Amino acid sequence: MNKLRLGIIGYGQQGGFYGDLLAKGQVSNMEVGAVTEIDSAKDARIKEVHPEVTIYRDYKEMVKSGDVDAIITTVPHYLHPEMAMFALENGIHVLNEKPAGVYTKQVKELNDFASKHDDLTYAIMFNQRNNPLYKRIKEIVDNGEIGDIRRTNWIITTWWRPQAYYDMSDWRATWGGEGGGVLVNQAPHQLDLIQWIAGVPEAVYGKVKYGYQRDIVVEDEVTAVLDYGNGATGTFVTCTHDLIGTDRLEILGDKGKIVVEDSQKVKVYRMTKSENDLNKEMDFEGVKSLFMGQMDINEIYQVEEFSAESQWGGQHAGVLENFAAHILDGEPLLAPGSEGINGVRLANAIHLSDWTNQEVSLVDFDDNQYLEELNKRIAEEGKYETR
Amino acid sequence: MNKLRLGIIGYGQQGGFYGDLLAKGQVSNMEVGAVTEIDSAKDARIKEVHPEVTIYRDYKEMVKSGDVDAIITTVPHYLHPEMAMFALENGIHVLNEKPAGVYTKQVKELNDFASKHDDLTYAIMFNQRNNPLYKRIKEIVDNGEIGDIRRTNWIITTWWRPQAYYDMSDWRATWGGEGGGVLVNQAPHQLDLIQWIAGVPEAVYGKVKYGYQRDIVVEDEVTAVLDYGNGATGTFVTCTHDLIGTDRLEILGDKGKIVVEDSQKVKVYRMTKSENDLNKEMDFEGVKSLFMGQMDINEIYQVEEFSAESQWGGQHAGVLENFAAHILDGEPLLAPGSEGINGVRLANAIHLSDWTNQEVSLVDFDDNQYLEELNKRIAEEGKYETR
Repeated sequence: MNKLRLGIIGYGQQGGFYGDLLAKGQVSNMEVGAVTEIDSAKDARIKEVHPEVTIYRDYKEMVKSGDVDAIITTVPHYLHPEMAMFALENGIHVLNEKPAGVYTKQVKELNDFASKHDDLTYAIMFNQRNNPLYKRIKEIVDNGEIGDIRRTNWIITTWWRPQAYYDMSDWRATWGGEGGGVLVNQAPHQLDLIQWIAGVPEAVYGKVKYGYQRDIVVEDEVTAVLDYGNGATGTFVTCTHDLIGTDRLEILGDKGKIVVEDSQKVKVYRMTKSENDLNKEMDFEGVKSLFMGQMDINEIYQVEEFSAESQWGGQHAGVLENFAAHILDGEPLLAPGSEGINGVRLANAIHLSDWTNQEVSLVDFDDNQYLEELNKRIAEEGKYETR
Repeated sequence: MNKLRLGIIGYGQQGGFYGDLLAKGQVSNMEVGAVTEIDSAKDARIKEVHPEVTIYRDYKEMVKSGDVDAIITTVPHYLHPEMAMFALENGIHVLNEKPAGVYTKQVKELNDFASKHDDLTYAIMFNQRNNPLYKRIKEIVDNGEIGDIRRTNWIITTWWRPQAYYDMSDWRATWGGEGGGVLVNQAPHQLDLIQWIAGVPEAVYGKVKYGYQRDIVVEDEVTAVLDYGNGATGTFVTCTHDLIGTDRLEILGDKGKIVVEDSQKVKVYRMTKSENDLNKEMDFEGVKSLFMGQMDINEIYQVEEFSAESQWGGQHAGVLENFAAHILDGEPLLAPGSEGINGVRLANAIHLSDWTNQEVSLVDFDDNQYLEELNKRIAEEGKYETR
């Protein structure tokens, strides 16, 4: 086959966005094979963009139709695992929309299932991994250019969402329909990036505000302290009520520092020696010149500045292209689906830490306890069945 | 009297710095009345700078001598409260060096004692309150120009200290001699400023590293989550091992935001309406233009930028001048000594939170529990008597 035929499940805002990208030929090795959309009111629009494509009401029918080689799951987050597993079971590749699922128990089940079908490709739409800026930062860190990481601090509050956004769909910002707020919908990109770049934390403390500035039951503000288990620590702050949003990531290593502002401007500080060595070499006289402001900081490090603007659509098109190229030509996969668990576990653990008012381990995270606590909230809310 | 006669207790680095300021006439309404210094090796230097001044070995003798109207306590932190109380008891005004003490129990005792001697002035050397930049920021917040505060984030890691610094004195960075590390010695300035500007938190969670990058038993890195009790939250990060130090304070209000970099550059974002109102007014069409990147952010807020460099010595001279002017002419006091408890309580609570692995209340903070835990560490260390 020349082009991978993608089945889009759910032709809403995100599904339609992928449909447009493919219809415009922005992904060289992929085309739309079919669409599943339960709402027939959208048929006219779908037919206009994809005149020769069949519209299914039931995604299972589409998966079995022979029309598609792979699916993408642009549907409410809870459904991602079950749809992915059904596709894999039927020999169809899967590109999951992020997050991989809502709670670790279902995502683990999916990962186990996918590992038993490893002839098929299971990937996840972490489009930010395809942002040239973060790719470059990951390279710098992986190359050891700033040494071993000691701290990360990310303030990512550029996710402003007004009440009208929350009121657009019944399921949005509910425990039973969406499974959370900013942690589940907006921040998964950064929850993935921070772990992709700096490593998977071993424990987390979370302070979470539910309906703080919006009329919703789920979280609209999060403050988390990450423990990487090797001495390194981090903070992670996000919310949906900061109209003058901040996006500032700082990574401190023992040989340098990276500061990223607005996901566009980067400063990389590279030290001539490791902080450990400079610390050991400095004597009493050195301390005196430090205190008298006579230490020449320019001798200690150099700064590289660069900036990169990334087109939002370009990131997604790149993930689609890589997914197809992996299947068609064996190109290495940018975002293996199995890595989706990390962000889900971190988000779950931040909730659980806040609910239990203590730091929570990610190493022996209690999937069942989280699901029990989530179900309590779904039951209290009274709009959806518990899980 | 025209000039207040100050007795300097301890002619080390800080005491000598004040001595120099006064000898050079940089404080118009104050002069050195006497000096207490136990180390006679420093006599020659003291006499050179202050030829007509008596050097005492015992501060109590100096307090009772009639040579001084006030004292300043540039001695190890533990001693501040007892020296301050002895002076007040003998009719002498007190300017305490920061921090007010090491643990809240002794600082409360001092505050109670001082309130019974309110004919005398008890102040504290919070020189950063005299930094024009932070004075202006406090005005902006107090005027309501950024509305009610929702978040504060301060990364203040410009306190780099090498091992040679810690090895300079036996008492430094010990539990029994100094009572802590970066929280007690370097960060008290910011622990005061954040509360002076944004209000006193009601609870705190702390993650603290002891001897993480230095061969010391006390803390060289701190990550704290502040809960202001009114919905607002904050983070506070400090350490002594970041050679490329960061100093970045962000204060988010419901009508704007303040971002301070390097305690020099300030951006003040003022919104045309409160975020609450903008949130309520935005309809579905507005959300669509937001998502299509068509919202004009310039219509929503204006940015003012300013910068202010503050001379370190100038700040201290200003506090000395204000202290003397308060006593001589009734000028309002910039830093009342009683406010020193806030920073000490916050530092103690961060320790206690880390030791007990849970969030700690500042409202009903358990002074005795903290002292017990501190004493355990002093005993384990085995160098000093417990308290």
